Amino acid sequence: MEKRALVVGAGLVGSLWAVLLAQRGYEVEVYELRQDPRSAGFTGGRSINLALSTRGWRALDKAGIGPGIRETAIPMYGRMMHSVEGELTFQPYGREGQAIFSVSRGGLNIALIEAADRYENLRFHFGQKCLGLDLADNTIHFEQLEDGRRSSVQSPLIFGADGAFSAVRRSLMKLPRFNFSQEYLEYGYKELHIPPAPGGGHAIDKNALHIWPRGHFMMIALPNVDGSFTGTLFLPFEGRKDAFEHLHSDEQAMAFFRQHFPDSLPLIPELLQDFRANPTSALATIRCNPWCYQDKVLLIGDSAHAIVPFYGQGMNAGFEDCSILDDMMEAYQDDWTAITGEFNRERIKDGNAIATLALRNFVEMRDLVADPLFLLRKEIAAHLQEKYPGDFLPLYSQVTFSHIPYSEALREGAAQDELFNRILAIPDIRHNWKKSPEVDRIFMQWLNERRS
Amino acid sequence: MEKRALVVGAGLVGSLWAVLLAQRGYEVEVYELRQDPRSAGFTGGRSINLALSTRGWRALDKAGIGPGIRETAIPMYGRMMHSVEGELTFQPYGREGQAIFSVSRGGLNIALIEAADRYENLRFHFGQKCLGLDLADNTIHFEQLEDGRRSSVQSPLIFGADGAFSAVRRSLMKLPRFNFSQEYLEYGYKELHIPPAPGGGHAIDKNALHIWPRGHFMMIALPNVDGSFTGTLFLPFEGRKDAFEHLHSDEQAMAFFRQHFPDSLPLIPELLQDFRANPTSALATIRCNPWCYQDKVLLIGDSAHAIVPFYGQGMNAGFEDCSILDDMMEAYQDDWTAITGEFNRERIKDGNAIATLALRNFVEMRDLVADPLFLLRKEIAAHLQEKYPGDFLPLYSQVTFSHIPYSEALREGAAQDELFNRILAIPDIRHNWKKSPEVDRIFMQWLNERRS
Repeated sequence: MEKRALVVGAGLVGSLWAVLLAQRGYEVEVYELRQDPRSAGFTGGRSINLALSTRGWRALDKAGIGPGIRETAIPMYGRMMHSVEGELTFQPYGREGQAIFSVSRGGLNIALIEAADRYENLRFHFGQKCLGLDLADNTIHFEQLEDGRRSSVQSPLIFGADGAFSAVRRSLMKLPRFNFSQEYLEYGYKELHIPPAPGGGHAIDKNALHIWPRGHFMMIALPNVDGSFTGTLFLPFEGRKDAFEHLHSDEQAMAFFRQHFPDSLPLIPELLQDFRANPTSALATIRCNPWCYQDKVLLIGDSAHAIVPFYGQGMNAGFEDCSILDDMMEAYQDDWTAITGEFNRERIKDGNAIATLALRNFVEMRDLVADPLFLLRKEIAAHLQEKYPGDFLPLYSQVTFSHIPYSEALREGAAQDELFNRILAIPDIRHNWKKSPEVDRIFMQWLNERRS
Repeated sequence: MEKRALVVGAGLVGSLWAVLLAQRGYEVEVYELRQDPRSAGFTGGRSINLALSTRGWRALDKAGIGPGIRETAIPMYGRMMHSVEGELTFQPYGREGQAIFSVSRGGLNIALIEAADRYENLRFHFGQKCLGLDLADNTIHFEQLEDGRRSSVQSPLIFGADGAFSAVRRSLMKLPRFNFSQEYLEYGYKELHIPPAPGGGHAIDKNALHIWPRGHFMMIALPNVDGSFTGTLFLPFEGRKDAFEHLHSDEQAMAFFRQHFPDSLPLIPELLQDFRANPTSALATIRCNPWCYQDKVLLIGDSAHAIVPFYGQGMNAGFEDCSILDDMMEAYQDDWTAITGEFNRERIKDGNAIATLALRNFVEMRDLVADPLFLLRKEIAAHLQEKYPGDFLPLYSQVTFSHIPYSEALREGAAQDELFNRILAIPDIRHNWKKSPEVDRIFMQWLNERRS
């Protein structure tokens, strides 16, 4: 077959995918709405830093840029919880040495575009707005932003990597029996800047993801290489006492921070300016089915499965799409009928599973992480993982530090909930779990039930 | 305020709603994609007959056309089940004399348009394709199908009654935080014509909705005034032994009907012609939230809540939107900020509830109606309704023969499931329920629990 492909979107997923296609000898055309970030500066994208984890690294390594990215990625070994009183509690993400990595969205995107641009068989077309597809002959239409000139390109394979508001997907939506949903959270978010400490360096522990959990809302902060942190406040838009609708004046914003995040005030000197200047953005979950049109058009990344950011898996899931497809190109020797068929059949349930997990993790982050019983569960889970490494991997580790399909992890998580319902029902568990043989007995029983 | 409104869509809901607006003195402009069905003949719409029930009648009576429609509507007092062997079982829908009414979509639509056209303050514009809205100034754009001429109309109130694939809704979808989903059933449907009996009259009992339940698929038939019935086959598109994908040749179709619906063969003389000529259509559930843009644009009927047809409530729910809004115009004296606010706050959950009920009723119709335990439950429910009329109204009656909000009926249905789980667990219930005091005892206990 003709090895020629067109990718819509040169964001994280589109440019990584373009590299993998080029590596396998495809002639690749990449069309992107924005201008070239290498010359125009990086704009857009919803958050300025992201958490890379195991699934994402595999794809970056496939594309040959893992080592370069590792040089500036900042490992975060766990969550650092800030109480209202300013007390800190650290909770590791996995086993010793395991971490998720804070990376800059702009830096990573530029690194991917640079990597892609090294291939002679790959060309970028920036400033090109996708107007839609003619599915009858796989022709795609663009408008050049600078001069409004329109062009049409025919390609045997078109990939929609154009994000949550995908124009490629909009064309597929007109097909009969195309299932689609976009669901917004009733929460918005606002980014706030935590500058480096006076004299340089990070003002708070740089090797942790900081969380200020406050029940129905929260703030988080991720480290940047320049010593700063990016803080993000997640808060209901309206309908509650604590909501963006009640934070219009400087006085209201300041009173809110004084009440709920007093220890953060010295860290965010430009709080009021940031609060006024930065947008309050919305958070959506997007699901659709199918992800393909025949063996000719395929959606990947956010265009197929945009999720809320609370499991740190949005980018990782999109990158995993790429590495799975790369494996399939190998296995099926570029038979795209087989590849799109299997990807569509097997991967959608994983996209749905990580969407569900991400929504649930919001409750965990904003509420449960401050719950003593939840922390106890984490401790016991770590003990079980340590003692029975082949038989117990906590859900968080399955999602973050493994390549287990998300849908399997979701099922496994339900079984683990059942286990911990039994364990946490042990009388006086809080004080004697280390000494009591009950935990291990219940675990072995649970394990035997699952094996039979 | 200025009493001026624009309605997009002159289908069942749009033309009924236009009448109610005109009655209250609004200057009403109605724009419709299709040509005037009074001159061009009725085209489109997915099924040619529909089941009118209590909610729908109320709105038709408000619009003053109830009596006229009653003259030709055919009462269906219950379900007539056809077994593979051709045995018939009748199951009443409600109390004696209660019925749902088979009406012709085209006839009803034309009657509504004629009723609307009697108002001097109401104008129809046919053959006008809605291109979208400018929400900034509530301007809506149309293209005249005949000559491609475009026009723009500004209106303080715009109603989207333009159906499941609403162009008005498409404009709202671009708003931030607009939730939307379209979900297709894995089933398609095909209409088949059952002509009048030789010599005129209906070939099978005209006062019933006929069902051929076959587990994972079914056929139904509704009577028409000319003595014919419209049959509809609901069958999976693919992926099962019995599926449209396996019915390509005449031989396959005929063998399928011989095996599953032998008693229908003499009724459908043109079976093979119908099967080839009639489309296999898809069935979608559409949900969105909000249904309005400020107090300026409001979605009603299928554009807000398209549902599958299995509860016979699609049209009735759309008509109920109209009568609820009409009540509100009265109560709030045309304060559209109050009306759109409350409608959006209160009615969406009812739209979601009837969507859920309709999906569930498919299982009931195609599978459970042939289940002896399900029939027993229906009998006991009828007994309870008879004996405790103030305390027990079966779910089906709440939906079909009452104005109880759908969301309340859905909740009530869950409680009734719980009741019947207990009743049907009585040993040997099948044979002795009429004599045993247990049924009444359990019912009273259930009632007391709910009251406390």
